[in-house]
Amino acid sequence: MAKALRVALAGLGTVGAGVIKLIDANRDLIERRAGRSIEIVAISARDRNRDRGVDLSGFEWVDDTTSLASHPDIDVVVELIGGSDGPALVLARNTIASGRAFVTANKAMIAHHGLELAGLAEGKGVALKYEAAVAGGIPVIKGLREGAAANEISGVFGILNGTCNYILSTMESEGRDFAEVLAEAQALGYAEADPSFDIDGVDAAHKLSILASLAFGTAIDFEGVDIRGIRHVIAADIVEAESLGHRIRLVGMASAGNGLLQRVQPCLVPLAHPLAHVTGSLNAVVAEGNFVGRLFLQGRGAGEGPTASAVVADLIDIARGETGPAFAMSVASLARTDRAPAGESMARTYLRFIVADRPGVLAEITAAMRDADVSIESLSQRGVTAEGAAVVAIVTHECREANVVKALGLLEGSSSLQAAPMVMPILEV
Amino acid sequence: MAKALRVALAGLGTVGAGVIKLIDANRDLIERRAGRSIEIVAISARDRNRDRGVDLSGFEWVDDTTSLASHPDIDVVVELIGGSDGPALVLARNTIASGRAFVTANKAMIAHHGLELAGLAEGKGVALKYEAAVAGGIPVIKGLREGAAANEISGVFGILNGTCNYILSTMESEGRDFAEVLAEAQALGYAEADPSFDIDGVDAAHKLSILASLAFGTAIDFEGVDIRGIRHVIAADIVEAESLGHRIRLVGMASAGNGLLQRVQPCLVPLAHPLAHVTGSLNAVVAEGNFVGRLFLQGRGAGEGPTASAVVADLIDIARGETGPAFAMSVASLARTDRAPAGESMARTYLRFIVADRPGVLAEITAAMRDADVSIESLSQRGVTAEGAAVVAIVTHECREANVVKALGLLEGSSSLQAAPMVMPILEV
Repeated sequence: MAKALRVALAGLGTVGAGVIKLIDANRDLIERRAGRSIEIVAISARDRNRDRGVDLSGFEWVDDTTSLASHPDIDVVVELIGGSDGPALVLARNTIASGRAFVTANKAMIAHHGLELAGLAEGKGVALKYEAAVAGGIPVIKGLREGAAANEISGVFGILNGTCNYILSTMESEGRDFAEVLAEAQALGYAEADPSFDIDGVDAAHKLSILASLAFGTAIDFEGVDIRGIRHVIAADIVEAESLGHRIRLVGMASAGNGLLQRVQPCLVPLAHPLAHVTGSLNAVVAEGNFVGRLFLQGRGAGEGPTASAVVADLIDIARGETGPAFAMSVASLARTDRAPAGESMARTYLRFIVADRPGVLAEITAAMRDADVSIESLSQRGVTAEGAAVVAIVTHECREANVVKALGLLEGSSSLQAAPMVMPILEV
Repeated sequence: MAKALRVALAGLGTVGAGVIKLIDANRDLIERRAGRSIEIVAISARDRNRDRGVDLSGFEWVDDTTSLASHPDIDVVVELIGGSDGPALVLARNTIASGRAFVTANKAMIAHHGLELAGLAEGKGVALKYEAAVAGGIPVIKGLREGAAANEISGVFGILNGTCNYILSTMESEGRDFAEVLAEAQALGYAEADPSFDIDGVDAAHKLSILASLAFGTAIDFEGVDIRGIRHVIAADIVEAESLGHRIRLVGMASAGNGLLQRVQPCLVPLAHPLAHVTGSLNAVVAEGNFVGRLFLQGRGAGEGPTASAVVADLIDIARGETGPAFAMSVASLARTDRAPAGESMARTYLRFIVADRPGVLAEITAAMRDADVSIESLSQRGVTAEGAAVVAIVTHECREANVVKALGLLEGSSSLQAAPMVMPILEV
């Protein structure tokens, strides 16, 4: 039996404790699968005295987290601190520079600095792994990097944020409003006290930019992700979507046909699409390959167990000697692709207006559609509120996004509209 | 750039032609991802002159397929001949013995001889890969061997035969009978002229035995799979299942709690279970890990493109230098687990009888249930046919399989029964 893979853990939150529990619980199995044992040697976190529900007495405690990078008895550092910059990034750079492997669950850091770190790792011939950074326990990084590696991928779609999916599917099943469900999710610990990273789509965008790089062989371009969150989805949208045979999901989608298109936005997903059946806090990814067709992977995208499972899968890969390029190819081979031109994408589109309930409003909206060359497939008005407002929901025929933007521009400032319109594309099956 | 990975293709049916097309179509992308080019050098098949729709003029034709094993210009042999023994097995043994890597789509050979071949490959330090053998383009081998490697897996469930799933979901959507849909599937080329390997569950059992080995770290035990096919599913079963909120699927299921339990059989799958939504010729696999929870992978399980995608993924892994043990651990580390005792498994169970429409029949059936200690959750009788037969469908409370067997034994030979009863377990969500 080869000698143990010696691991340092930086960060001892939920996931760090999960990694310790997993390696303890599945020790024998891991040793058989990895061909050697995986041993946590040193640990570091901000607060030494917090009770984390795991016994830390067998590990060397290191106060200065950064010093793990050059610890003499360590083969690989697992970073679970979080944050795109700061100590996590310093630790990553120093660990790789010292010729050690680096494993992280940090999507923000990979989205912002992944290429730099991959280049460093290539230069040193060490592994940089981040399966836990996207979709938790689902092996989507491996699925794209290796499983679908023979394919040209035309598109990748994902439900990448469990908090948003929990909120949307709870709104759906219980007919409740966004703010109410969010507050409950916060009380239950499913959503952060400051939920903006999740509900405004930033977290999903980090993950999408990583998937897009792997799928298309392009350099990560997080800044190129067009991000819209779920804050403005109202209960009436869910009802309208349902009446159209659709569900609302926050979907990260990327394609590379006519330039790199990367978006995170709430969408109407038809019931015949696999993403429509992803409920609660589950995550899922769909990839469309030119030979494999559509692949669909679903599972638990966050939490102690699933995230620890992904971290330790990376460690097993490293123990087995699997240390290839982080983004499936050398950093120099990644294409620097232009972004897709704005407004050119085509989709059937859902538009929802909250309007004053008075004569002429529908004429005003439909005239704007006509003048922007947006053809209407269906229109409904319902739900006049106590305040005298009505909800108007329009589904367009397939049209250019720029035309929809133009139509909304024509309506801007209209006294008929009582709130900003909601715009969501409708996914194709 | 490292030198090319030189490949020989043995067998030029649909999949072989697909591999040639894929490597040609995605050449640049594969080279970037693999870090080197992948070049087909030599090919061999029975009939040199058949038109396969691909240009073979650039490849060396080899008449004696077995000689590919020791071809001096070859790094890896891809076997697409099929058959558990015969030329495929000779080629596998000789290729590995000569120190070359071996890739196959041959589930029958892996199910029967995988351990022997893995042992040979270990001894020689070469790769033995077979992603295409199970679930076509879906990376389930990689998913279990690597993606879920940190987990103790309690169960694996799969829809592993596209022909059966096509037949069952067509029976479901069109309300037609088995024989009629099978005949149509044969006419369309979706089912073989001799369909027994598919519809009697043998093909799914080959695949299940491979998944079970990877999931549980146990030696492959194909002979231990309890196999029942879909031949005796009738349209009335589909209707009954639907009225109970279920769909009928041929499910391969394995667990390792109390001995190794491996079964392929038609089951009632509740709509809330992801396998219920696997339609047409799709394949899917569910694995339940002690940290990751439930993973669900779905995609195209057969055909030229998906199977070629899996074969070339294996070649890319080999080109990258990923050559670890075929069954996730050394052959010596695989446990030799006893089989689960027969009759001990617990499930709610669907029983369907075709009975004479006369007084006393229900009393006879329900008395047998009582005498075998099988508790009935629901019972329906409907659909009296022109011949005076009725369909009786019973759902039991959770009970030991042995009790169901006993009840059926008590009814054996009864003149009330006009056909052998149908027995299907009901999956839990």
